[in-house]
Amino acid sequence: MKYKTTKQGHVIKLERGENVIETLTAFCAENNISVGVFQGIGAVERVKIGYYDLGKKEYFFRDEAGVFEVASMQGNVALVDGKPFIHAHAVLSRCDATCECIGAHIKEAFVAVTLEIYLTPLDVSISRKLDGDIGLKLLDL
Amino acid sequence: MKYKTTKQGHVIKLERGENVIETLTAFCAENNISVGVFQGIGAVERVKIGYYDLGKKEYFFRDEAGVFEVASMQGNVALVDGKPFIHAHAVLSRCDATCECIGAHIKEAFVAVTLEIYLTPLDVSISRKLDGDIGLKLLDL
Amino acid sequence: MKYKTTKQGHVIKLERGENVIETLTAFCAENNISVGVFQGIGAVERVKIGYYDLGKKEYFFRDEAGVFEVASMQGNVALVDGKPFIHAHAVLSRCDATCECIGAHIKEAFVAVTLEIYLTPLDVSISRKLDGDIGLKLLDL
Repeated sequence: MKYKTTKQGHVIKLERGENVIETLTAFCAENNISVGVFQGIGAVERVKIGYYDLGKKEYFFRDEAGVFEVASMQGNVALVDGKPFIHAHAVLSRCDATCECIGAHIKEAFVAVTLEIYLTPLDVSISRKLDGDIGLKLLDL
Repeated sequence: MKYKTTKQGHVIKLERGENVIETLTAFCAENNISVGVFQGIGAVERVKIGYYDLGKKEYFFRDEAGVFEVASMQGNVALVDGKPFIHAHAVLSRCDATCECIGAHIKEAFVAVTLEIYLTPLDVSISRKLDGDIGLKLLDL
Repeated sequence: MKYKTTKQGHVIKLERGENVIETLTAFCAENNISVGVFQGIGAVERVKIGYYDLGKKEYFFRDEAGVFEVASMQGNVALVDGKPFIHAHAVLSRCDATCECIGAHIKEAFVAVTLEIYLTPLDVSISRKLDGDIGLKLLDL
């Protein structure tokens, strides 16, 4: 993982084999970023991707071993238990002739080729708090 | 709908049942935001999603009743008839084991779980104006 | 192509028939933007879209003649051989009743209806450099 910091935000390159969520979380912790937003493009593999089942109040995840292009990644950073927590969604496209997409919440993913992230820190304090009706830790604004 | 304002932009949480486009439009009107850009992730339901048929010069929309993850949402704000107008595109993924995506222009959507938006106001005046060749109100730059 | 410049970034409208990557590249060159990030929505046609095959160390591209909505576009600008180079990924949805998506790296695309881009220049110098292991010019941070 390498990065350059600009006046507006951080340009981050995640490298082959790195755990996307863990590496971004560590970056935020080390740089005192408690709140922010990001976007990213690249390619990942060994992905746990899924959705929240509102009826069952639990996530469903599927495992994808192979390489996908990250056609889109969007996410944010907010505090959970006082530590930066990454919430990331992505659209992944199959690396075959179809270029078909799957998408949703990214629980885990490892960089396959490269992942180019642009992260904007925000000068505000925002935590996530359990919403009993929804069953998730939502932004507490 | 709840929000926090930072130096750079607004972090907005739309809540279960809220009309996405109407709520964002009202937020912009109340906060004197006439131009801006946004991104968002979350989950929505009762969606009207579709595309512009350039040959027929009309939109085609399909209705989706069920819940979809918002794998990606991008949009902008500009003035139409002197009022803020939201132009939003999204990639929605099915909340089933396929995680398959549909995408395009969002005419209407209601928040299913949560929708986390980051909106950057821009300090410029931009209106939309009917382009006769295209048949749509495009950005008048 | 038309644009308005704000304190934060550039709002750009690409017009029907324009080559997306070439036009953005020329815009960056003319405005001395060597590094930046962007997002965009609209519709394109005559697209070369594809993925990087890490095993073969080469891109595979497919050609799509017809019109697709740009459900999502994200990208960045960095220097290659001292000149601004555009790296863009997109999720494109079929302009038919399915609204199905394909996505990945965009080598070429022409504007079909309009393409509304928001580009943030970044005050830092970043070049791309060939990574021998990966076989691509990655961000040199």
